[in-house]
Amino acid sequence: MSKFRFLTAGESHGKCLTAIIEGVPAGFEINSEFINSELKRRQGGYGRGARMKIESDTVEITSGIRFGKTIGSPITLVIQNKDFENWQKIMSIYPEDFTDEKSFTKCRPGHADYAGSIKYNQKDLRNILERSSARKTAIETAVGAVAKQILEKFNVKWSSRIIQIGNVKENFEQEIDKAKEIGDTLGGKFEIIFENLPIGLGSYVHWDRTIDGKIAQTVMSIPAIKSVSFGNYNAYKMFGSEYHDEMFLDNGKIVRKTNNAGGVEGGMTNGQPLIVTAVMKPIPTLKKPLSTVDLLTMEETQAHFERSDTCAVEACSVVAEARIATVLADEILEKFGGDNFEEIMKRI
Amino acid sequence: MSKFRFLTAGESHGKCLTAIIEGVPAGFEINSEFINSELKRRQGGYGRGARMKIESDTVEITSGIRFGKTIGSPITLVIQNKDFENWQKIMSIYPEDFTDEKSFTKCRPGHADYAGSIKYNQKDLRNILERSSARKTAIETAVGAVAKQILEKFNVKWSSRIIQIGNVKENFEQEIDKAKEIGDTLGGKFEIIFENLPIGLGSYVHWDRTIDGKIAQTVMSIPAIKSVSFGNYNAYKMFGSEYHDEMFLDNGKIVRKTNNAGGVEGGMTNGQPLIVTAVMKPIPTLKKPLSTVDLLTMEETQAHFERSDTCAVEACSVVAEARIATVLADEILEKFGGDNFEEIMKRI
Amino acid sequence: MSKFRFLTAGESHGKCLTAIIEGVPAGFEINSEFINSELKRRQGGYGRGARMKIESDTVEITSGIRFGKTIGSPITLVIQNKDFENWQKIMSIYPEDFTDEKSFTKCRPGHADYAGSIKYNQKDLRNILERSSARKTAIETAVGAVAKQILEKFNVKWSSRIIQIGNVKENFEQEIDKAKEIGDTLGGKFEIIFENLPIGLGSYVHWDRTIDGKIAQTVMSIPAIKSVSFGNYNAYKMFGSEYHDEMFLDNGKIVRKTNNAGGVEGGMTNGQPLIVTAVMKPIPTLKKPLSTVDLLTMEETQAHFERSDTCAVEACSVVAEARIATVLADEILEKFGGDNFEEIMKRI
Amino acid sequence: MSKFRFLTAGESHGKCLTAIIEGVPAGFEINSEFINSELKRRQGGYGRGARMKIESDTVEITSGIRFGKTIGSPITLVIQNKDFENWQKIMSIYPEDFTDEKSFTKCRPGHADYAGSIKYNQKDLRNILERSSARKTAIETAVGAVAKQILEKFNVKWSSRIIQIGNVKENFEQEIDKAKEIGDTLGGKFEIIFENLPIGLGSYVHWDRTIDGKIAQTVMSIPAIKSVSFGNYNAYKMFGSEYHDEMFLDNGKIVRKTNNAGGVEGGMTNGQPLIVTAVMKPIPTLKKPLSTVDLLTMEETQAHFERSDTCAVEACSVVAEARIATVLADEILEKFGGDNFEEIMKRI
Repeated sequence: MSKFRFLTAGESHGKCLTAIIEGVPAGFEINSEFINSELKRRQGGYGRGARMKIESDTVEITSGIRFGKTIGSPITLVIQNKDFENWQKIMSIYPEDFTDEKSFTKCRPGHADYAGSIKYNQKDLRNILERSSARKTAIETAVGAVAKQILEKFNVKWSSRIIQIGNVKENFEQEIDKAKEIGDTLGGKFEIIFENLPIGLGSYVHWDRTIDGKIAQTVMSIPAIKSVSFGNYNAYKMFGSEYHDEMFLDNGKIVRKTNNAGGVEGGMTNGQPLIVTAVMKPIPTLKKPLSTVDLLTMEETQAHFERSDTCAVEACSVVAEARIATVLADEILEKFGGDNFEEIMKRI
Repeated sequence: MSKFRFLTAGESHGKCLTAIIEGVPAGFEINSEFINSELKRRQGGYGRGARMKIESDTVEITSGIRFGKTIGSPITLVIQNKDFENWQKIMSIYPEDFTDEKSFTKCRPGHADYAGSIKYNQKDLRNILERSSARKTAIETAVGAVAKQILEKFNVKWSSRIIQIGNVKENFEQEIDKAKEIGDTLGGKFEIIFENLPIGLGSYVHWDRTIDGKIAQTVMSIPAIKSVSFGNYNAYKMFGSEYHDEMFLDNGKIVRKTNNAGGVEGGMTNGQPLIVTAVMKPIPTLKKPLSTVDLLTMEETQAHFERSDTCAVEACSVVAEARIATVLADEILEKFGGDNFEEIMKRI
Repeated sequence: MSKFRFLTAGESHGKCLTAIIEGVPAGFEINSEFINSELKRRQGGYGRGARMKIESDTVEITSGIRFGKTIGSPITLVIQNKDFENWQKIMSIYPEDFTDEKSFTKCRPGHADYAGSIKYNQKDLRNILERSSARKTAIETAVGAVAKQILEKFNVKWSSRIIQIGNVKENFEQEIDKAKEIGDTLGGKFEIIFENLPIGLGSYVHWDRTIDGKIAQTVMSIPAIKSVSFGNYNAYKMFGSEYHDEMFLDNGKIVRKTNNAGGVEGGMTNGQPLIVTAVMKPIPTLKKPLSTVDLLTMEETQAHFERSDTCAVEACSVVAEARIATVLADEILEKFGGDNFEEIMKRI
Repeated sequence: MSKFRFLTAGESHGKCLTAIIEGVPAGFEINSEFINSELKRRQGGYGRGARMKIESDTVEITSGIRFGKTIGSPITLVIQNKDFENWQKIMSIYPEDFTDEKSFTKCRPGHADYAGSIKYNQKDLRNILERSSARKTAIETAVGAVAKQILEKFNVKWSSRIIQIGNVKENFEQEIDKAKEIGDTLGGKFEIIFENLPIGLGSYVHWDRTIDGKIAQTVMSIPAIKSVSFGNYNAYKMFGSEYHDEMFLDNGKIVRKTNNAGGVEGGMTNGQPLIVTAVMKPIPTLKKPLSTVDLLTMEETQAHFERSDTCAVEACSVVAEARIATVLADEILEKFGGDNFEEIMKRI
């Protein structure tokens, strides 16, 4: 049984996004303001569209916390959709409210529309768009913000940075402006670092316990991520003697001069900074629309367009940071065991 | 409950490797010769060391199959270690057989030795090496060979190829020879393709159901894999208008002219070939040994060397193919439901 | 991966109870009025206290359903606490609202108070009471009401009845009145029947797939349940020749004259009605309080009393019905596979 | 992730039974002789048939243990079928060995035959019998014997006793002899006690974490078990004031004078002995055969008979003890966390 299992729910224009987190021991301080600041980070970054400005997500905690601390019960997080009154009828749960307003059938390449409509047998692609939207990463960020507050108690640190946007490695604002002007979009590459992790999170003993495997799943599951790497991504070009992080002694302590492995050896954290790199594809909703097929009329046409961003790599890196935090919090809580904060702290 | 859950066990020089697969419906034909041919593929490839030649793995099926077909019961696969008589005492389960023959304390960088010895509190790094060894991928390959025989019934096809070894994209035998000569090792990049998959495997509705997330975990968990990608790995450099796979009609059927997405949109298979690329780091066991620390004496020294390969990228691609097959077999069996082959075939 | 996995959350006097259900295929009609009628059933029954009258639970669905049907996304159910304004400060998530109003330390025997306070290191037993309360069965009943609406599409039927309250097998209202008068409480025994289930739900092939095992867990997990049985609970007194349900032919169809097995053979449904019997202990909150210990002062005292029922066996049977429905819906959805209603119906 | 997850495999007359246990920390002493003594206990008891005498099961450990201690790797347990040479052809995995020797179609009421043949679409009921047989409890007993050796390190104690066989509460040998004489069978009721468990195993916070729920599943999943109870099974007849275990002080320590709850309150262990009672139905394989239907000819007939026991309640109690031990070992290992024995012992 995981110590940090969770389910998330909610449509992009539905009433709210919800998450339930189950398994967190009692006595951990959880601050909703920190969660809100993470939600704000996710909404930022150069290249975001109009929706981000109107929304300003905030979380409400409706269970699991009392007087600032976890009590062992499942934690519920809710992010209201501030624009819901405009969507109430369109997203109604009641059959009598049926409307085809905002329905669409012009499949957006790069999105879940096509496969989703077949899988779930939906004619109105709105029913696919609503859950496949990147909007759901808001509640995932909130979940990660809970995980981060747990990690803080173990002195774990983290950071992230953009490595490249399109073909530009620095000052990429211009590149984004250019893309916006021509109604196009951009992806990019970013890096997440977690430091001060205990040695030995994850394991080599069974494939589904490797820490790199778990992190790869969680990061790859973020919409638009197409590649996940650990450490030096030129690994395939290097000789073993160049690549591997040799070990030395410094005042009786084991040290390394390199970190090509990105902090993972044998499916475990090895005491060096954990370095994860990910590639985000360009956003598939384009103002200058893509060629596609209308699934209703089965005619060639141009893809449905709905308010979107030009570039969301920075937001995506915030989400990835959050997602990795949930994996690490789960691993650390499992490592230390215990049902309450006081008991756990004695074990560090 | 998964339709293809499994556990594997076994040490590199232990008596045998074992896997139990649970959840396969009854009536599927499983042929042990096919499993053996996959085991042989895993042992091949240019750059393998001496062990591969002596071993010639073969599988024994000890449960779950009768007269060539699954009967619904869990399937047990066993690969005997043909060299076990030489290791019987060294790997004995009995305390009275204790010996420090073959024990070592000179930590091998790039392996699980260091973190493993701390995590599991082991002084003899043999206790880490034995399970963290790539030897365990033999039984994972056997498990994948069962999955492939299931996939065949759904007309799924697969293939793999090496993209690059070190700095060479073709005719890399010379590069490997060179590395071998200088006691060094090489990694590489390879690609796996699965074709003819049903549309809609995986889902966007919850992060842990995305097919790319599941595949990323399973491939990243293979020892030495450091990067996993789907489709065009230049995604981060491209404009949205260049990257996304537009949709057209051809005789009333939806077609694409590109497959930059690698067959995955919205966390689901989209009907195009599934293309996974992975990077393998160079093998960390070097004849020309790396600098390291002896964990017993805490002195700087050179890493323990144990018979090894120069390059195992081809073997690794066979393992990756097998691992992806297990994920896909699980997804397909879940999609069709049913408890026996005849019932399932009616649903296709 | 389960087809009907869910998490629930919420404290007894918290803002709301929440559940997220993940895995339900698209296209199933889900009616919130039916859920409300089930919530009403749970609040009824002879012997309930005052709280049941003020509350009248109703569900709000905030995701996963559009125009009356599931769309494949996770489903969120919320039951607001109508009395929350009186508890807002007491149950606040903010540290600055800290109050010891409504806190208590006089351990209630039969409740989670004692073990919970040690496990979660809580001095205020309110932090234990709030989640261990039977209040959480309201949201479990709502989850079960979703499951029942799925089962209806497969023509499954169900019913339940009280077998015994205290020492009385019929007209037990008097017995309850008597208990109430003396400030005491009563438990009882009840029976749940599900009919028209497909043959072969569950399996003997692995212990964690037996249908009776899964149902036993789910029913035993209901607060106050102490015993779960299938079929004739005199099984231990009977000869094999008396107990086993012999098979005969009636117009070419296999029939039985008895159902001592309660519809389960070999861990699977066998086509006969599934009959589950459970025993509920008497409610542990007594007006005539029990002897106990104050965990703060460590003095002998009388247990904390909080508004409660005299007898809740009928409510408990409604919860058990709901809980069994979730297990069966999960099994049936797994059996038929498929991602949408239309696809599934073709397979029946 | 569980700390004691396992899969078992093997047919009744197959080559061997196998189990893989994954998640056990390193450094625990595991003795195969203790496992063998538990296997012997399972084979004993008054009323067993001839097979028990020829078999004398012994375990072989083929992975996960070195020099008497776990090393963190998955543990493989194998029990060879000593009679396999007589079954080699009949249980062959090869299609060319096909034979209908030992096949049967006369459905045995009370067994998995009927539902199993439909579920798995098998004409030869041998394919159902082989895995649904109680034979698989041998390997489950071996798994439990590993769990027990872990529990011993935490000073946990256990015992079991038969409460009733048929209508007899003591000296039931005569009752069994009588049944045997008339070709009939008997079930019974037995009790398992675990003492000295830590307070707070399990939890009330989510239904699937209650310790009584987990134990109920595991015990109910044993073939022939029809009822599972905790503590006083007259709970439904008693007043709350009679039933609940009041708390008192004795030299400053909290004590109870009764244990009607059977050591479980609020889904958690409460420091008192854990008492589980279970009912086993009479064995369904009768020498004096039951009326049934031949599934091939669809004619009424008498059930297939295969060598069997008259009464196996004692064996069943050994299995139940083993099964509960696995649940408790998992819970305790999760509670203490840690990856190796030395680390864990510091936390007790």
